[in-house]
Amino acid sequence: MSKSVFYHAGCSVCVSAEQDIVNLLGADKVEVVHIGNDKSRIDEAEKAGVKSVPALVTPNGNVLHINFGASMADVKG
Amino acid sequence: MSKSVFYHAGCSVCVSAEQDIVNLLGADKVEVVHIGNDKSRIDEAEKAGVKSVPALVTPNGNVLHINFGASMADVKG
Repeated sequence: MSKSVFYHAGCSVCVSAEQDIVNLLGADKVEVVHIGNDKSRIDEAEKAGVKSVPALVTPNGNVLHINFGASMADVKG
Repeated sequence: MSKSVFYHAGCSVCVSAEQDIVNLLGADKVEVVHIGNDKSRIDEAEKAGVKSVPALVTPNGNVLHINFGASMADVKG
């Protein structure tokens, strides 16, 4: 994949980080996924190695956990 | 300021995150500061709001703490 994927769950920490990441990388370089609303993508996020949100999965598959909004367990609950 | 500043302390978590951030943002968009080696800049990092490293301070002054390498207390010690 050539885009990064930013997973978040709509919390205030997430939204703030999302704006920073989109500004820094450019909106066309990042897919933003709200896994609080789109729970079908939680499984995909976990397989990518996301332990908490907000998190950025880079094009080479590394996971950068940014600040700390919510654990994956919280998002599922 | 127009550049982001990436503060780190040389730990493996930091180095991995540094490579990702530099790749994503572009080397000319990020100043990389090793506060483990350059302790004179710890004060600057703390004033910017850095609580742990690695962390990225964006051009608009927001702090993104990335993964978790070391607390500022550890870096000073």
